[in-house]
Amino acid sequence: MHMNATPQTMHFADRLPLQSGASLGAYHLSYETYGTLNADKSNAVLICHALNASHHVAGVYEGQAKSQGWWDNMIGPGKSLDTNRFFVIGVNNLGSCFGSTGPMHTNPDTGKVYGADFPVVTVEDWVNAQARLLDVLGIQTLAAVMGGSLGGMQALSWTLQYPDRVKHAVVVASAPNLTAENIAFNEVARRAIVTDPDFHGGHFYEHGTIPKRGLRIARMIGHITYLSDDVMNEKFGRQLKTALKKGELGSYLYSTQDVEFQIESYLRYQGDKFAEYFDANTYLLITRALDYFDPARTYGGSLSQALARATCKFLLVSFTTDWRFSPKRSREMVKALLDNKRDVSYAEIDAPHGHDAFLLDDARYMGVVSSYFDSVHRSLEVTA
Amino acid sequence: MHMNATPQTMHFADRLPLQSGASLGAYHLSYETYGTLNADKSNAVLICHALNASHHVAGVYEGQAKSQGWWDNMIGPGKSLDTNRFFVIGVNNLGSCFGSTGPMHTNPDTGKVYGADFPVVTVEDWVNAQARLLDVLGIQTLAAVMGGSLGGMQALSWTLQYPDRVKHAVVVASAPNLTAENIAFNEVARRAIVTDPDFHGGHFYEHGTIPKRGLRIARMIGHITYLSDDVMNEKFGRQLKTALKKGELGSYLYSTQDVEFQIESYLRYQGDKFAEYFDANTYLLITRALDYFDPARTYGGSLSQALARATCKFLLVSFTTDWRFSPKRSREMVKALLDNKRDVSYAEIDAPHGHDAFLLDDARYMGVVSSYFDSVHRSLEVTA
Repeated sequence: MHMNATPQTMHFADRLPLQSGASLGAYHLSYETYGTLNADKSNAVLICHALNASHHVAGVYEGQAKSQGWWDNMIGPGKSLDTNRFFVIGVNNLGSCFGSTGPMHTNPDTGKVYGADFPVVTVEDWVNAQARLLDVLGIQTLAAVMGGSLGGMQALSWTLQYPDRVKHAVVVASAPNLTAENIAFNEVARRAIVTDPDFHGGHFYEHGTIPKRGLRIARMIGHITYLSDDVMNEKFGRQLKTALKKGELGSYLYSTQDVEFQIESYLRYQGDKFAEYFDANTYLLITRALDYFDPARTYGGSLSQALARATCKFLLVSFTTDWRFSPKRSREMVKALLDNKRDVSYAEIDAPHGHDAFLLDDARYMGVVSSYFDSVHRSLEVTA
Repeated sequence: MHMNATPQTMHFADRLPLQSGASLGAYHLSYETYGTLNADKSNAVLICHALNASHHVAGVYEGQAKSQGWWDNMIGPGKSLDTNRFFVIGVNNLGSCFGSTGPMHTNPDTGKVYGADFPVVTVEDWVNAQARLLDVLGIQTLAAVMGGSLGGMQALSWTLQYPDRVKHAVVVASAPNLTAENIAFNEVARRAIVTDPDFHGGHFYEHGTIPKRGLRIARMIGHITYLSDDVMNEKFGRQLKTALKKGELGSYLYSTQDVEFQIESYLRYQGDKFAEYFDANTYLLITRALDYFDPARTYGGSLSQALARATCKFLLVSFTTDWRFSPKRSREMVKALLDNKRDVSYAEIDAPHGHDAFLLDDARYMGVVSSYFDSVHRSLEVTA
């Protein structure tokens, strides 16, 4: 039994100044809320999403039984983030293809579809847009901001951009910036998209094409980095497509282009599915936001100096087999916060699923988050 | 001062039966030799090459000072594999684009260029072709067979296919088969090539096109997996293209398509260079040969049973930061050989360079190989 979710839209007439120096004209944000905002508006929790997600964080849409939000295992009545206690807000980021203003929408300044001209948006810009939404909702202070992966970067950035508006931050499977290898994988994916002849410099909408070849490659690369080597071996190993049962030997087809191994079949399927619904310009924008995030950048690379601005309490969670945003990266953030004598809880969860683990059900993971939100809830009662 | 190298060609009129059941008509192999074959023809060492290499293993071509062979730091007069002692043979594999019969050559059975119809060749097929070359050269027994990465797979396969013809095998940075993740990376690279509109189903020669987009992506992916995360951070980190000096901050361009980070510039350069000289059909064939290699396959997955056929002595070398063919994979081979009570030396070299380390100069690595070939040389003298 899932709670019902209802997407909403908030329009903003004022321009949004962006970190790049550009600004975005009138725009809208898609969002959803779950639970009830209490009288003193102190129980709001903002959820920030990662690359391939949206404002649809939890619950299902009426009449669509299989439309669970992407963190529905985490958020809902009686769940780790309990919507009987908290007022939870999911918001779709600018530049997305899932509702908020993005490259497929019309630029009010020109009357033309943005396409590749949609301005580059950063994690900081997203956080500013989210803060404006909270202003309209009348929420001055968040009980907590929470996110995984790129969403965790936004949660961290909230604590730096609006330290007075955040009581707790939950940063899951994230990093204080991308490594060269992380950027490299993003760049290959972007090159696959940009060099697809159907991309037309990002103005493919007006050509009636979709750069599906590039999107498929981008998604296949992404999927490899989301999974651990171990879980890939466990799930697929060297199993052949022709071997109908697990453990059956099967026969090599001796083909360079046909699907030979199950892992190939899985990746092609994921690529095909993604290319049907994801926008190519959005992919470029979101991977670039990942690349650019680097709060230590203007502090000579000192994360400790950069995080001095943060005053809230923190829970950080990482997963042992995550090689995209490894535990080492979470420990860097923990250290930088402790250098500033901040109140930090840190859990390193022994999970086999790689980066994907942050989206999966794991008793220890859910337990850690649940305990943390128990304490957030207790602190609300004390305040009240 | 490098020794001079001279490429040679050997033509074979007899068909080569292939593992797939197909066969290859009249074909030729490109090869080079260094040093002198001794009177009893007991000092021959065969070098097997990896994905992006050839028969040009050592030395330089006359008048081309910068044309060093790919393992020139390892092989030559007075080097770890000393050509004053050994007669070293480099041979280019079938299906390559560097000399031996490949997809760009004419199929004698049809009079047409092979293109995508070049038969799938396996590690075992390559070894059979290499054995035929040795037959013509009058070499019955190899003092050693040696290779790194895919070349190491060939060296291992020699010990299984022709156990009586090999005295020693040197298997560097290799694996007894690919993991699901390894196959996944190969598959993404192949999809990038095959879905490039200029590929034309592999018959691009007759269309006058080259699938450079796909080749670039394939090479970029490859390069990421050849390097360690550490060495990428050390070499490139988050350094911007606009920052002219290392350590300089530079300014973000705020662009999704322009080169922003040095790592992007490096990868694009590597991709562009590769697309100029590598053949797309060859890339498919060689990555498939990697995927298919799996000597344990017909032994219910038991590598120990599979390696029971090998009777020679072994040196295995791996590199700590190699995540493509990790030390764990070398240890699997060591264990399987020890299960069969074989004579095995194993060195795990603490090197920062990832998989690429097998091609680089490292004193400990060169020392291990040098010592091993000293003992191979001593065993020759005893026999003689």
